[in-house]
Amino acid sequence: MSSAREHILQTTCDLMEKQGYHGTGLNEIVKESGAPKGSLYHYFPEGKEQITSEAVMQSGKATAQRIQNGLSENSNAAKAIYDFVLNIADHVESSGFAAGSPLTAVAMETATKSERINSACREAYTLLETAFKEKLLESGFTKIKADELGTFITAAIEGGIILSRTYHSGNPLRTVAKNLKVLLSQSI
Amino acid sequence: MSSAREHILQTTCDLMEKQGYHGTGLNEIVKESGAPKGSLYHYFPEGKEQITSEAVMQSGKATAQRIQNGLSENSNAAKAIYDFVLNIADHVESSGFAAGSPLTAVAMETATKSERINSACREAYTLLETAFKEKLLESGFTKIKADELGTFITAAIEGGIILSRTYHSGNPLRTVAKNLKVLLSQSI
Repeated sequence: MSSAREHILQTTCDLMEKQGYHGTGLNEIVKESGAPKGSLYHYFPEGKEQITSEAVMQSGKATAQRIQNGLSENSNAAKAIYDFVLNIADHVESSGFAAGSPLTAVAMETATKSERINSACREAYTLLETAFKEKLLESGFTKIKADELGTFITAAIEGGIILSRTYHSGNPLRTVAKNLKVLLSQSI
Repeated sequence: MSSAREHILQTTCDLMEKQGYHGTGLNEIVKESGAPKGSLYHYFPEGKEQITSEAVMQSGKATAQRIQNGLSENSNAAKAIYDFVLNIADHVESSGFAAGSPLTAVAMETATKSERINSACREAYTLLETAFKEKLLESGFTKIKADELGTFITAAIEGGIILSRTYHSGNPLRTVAKNLKVLLSQSI
C-alpha cells in the first residue's frame, strides 16, 4: 500500500474515532491528511463509502494486532486482559477522551444505512473478538467458553470506552477491567 | 410539557438512535415529526444543541424507567437482569437493528465536541447505571459491589447492543445476558 493512501486512511480513522461517520467530511479528510484532493479520488474512486470501509478494516486489523501484542505480555489470560483494559483506560485519558474506540460511532451510524460499511464493521469486530478468543484458547479455556467470553469481553470493553469517554474519566474502564478479571478467574 | 414539544424530542431521539447526531439534520426532524418549522424554533430557540441535549435527557429518563419496570418483574437481581437483556436482544432484532441504544452514537460523537450535550449524556448514563445499582442494593449486594456492577452491567449491555446491531443478530446480547448472570450469581 502506498504511504499516501495509507495516510489518508489513517486520517479517516482518527477523525471518525473522534466525531463519527457523518461528522467527518471528505474536505476535512483532505485538509487533515494534507493530501491533494486529486489523490483522494485517485485512490478511492468510489468516494466516502469506499474510504470508510477501508479505514474500518485498517483500524480493525491494527486494533487486533494491538490486542495480540498486549495480551502476549502475560501467559495468564485473566491477568493479561486485566492489564490490557487498564492500558486502554490510560489511552482514553491521555487522548483527552477523543479516542479509544475507532469503530463504535461508525458502526452505529451505518448499521442499517450502508451494507458496504456494515460489512467492514462486522469483519473488523470479528478480528477483535478473535484476538481475545485465541488468547483464551491458549490459556486452556474450552472452545465454547472462549467463543462466548471473546464476545463478552469485546462488548464490555466497547461499553467501558463509551462510558469513559462520556464521563471524561478512565474509571468506568477500570471497573470493566476488574470485573472481567473476576469473571475470567472463575470461568476456567 | 406540550405534546408538540415532546413529539419533536421523541422524533429527535429516534433519528439519532438510528443515525447519530451529525447524521440527523434539523430539516429531517421537522419533516419526520410533522411539526411546523416555526414550532421547532419556538420550542428550541437555541437550535440543534438544545434539542439534542433535551432529547438525550428525555431518552435517559425513559430508558431508566424501562430498566426499573423490567427489573421489577423478578426479585432476584441476576435473573431479572438476565431476562431484561434477553428482552433487549428481541427489541434490537424487531427494530431491524436500527434501535436499541439511543445514547451511544450521540455520546461518542459529542464527547469532546459539545459540553452541553456531553453533560446531558453523563446525566442520562448516570440514570441508567443508577437503575441497575438500586436493583442490586435491593437484592442484598453491598453498596460498593452495587456501584461497580451497575457500571459494569451498563457497559456490557451498551457493547452488546453495538455488536448486535453491527452483526444484525441478537446473539451477542444473549451472550452478554448469560455472562452477566454468571458474574452476578457469583458476586453476592
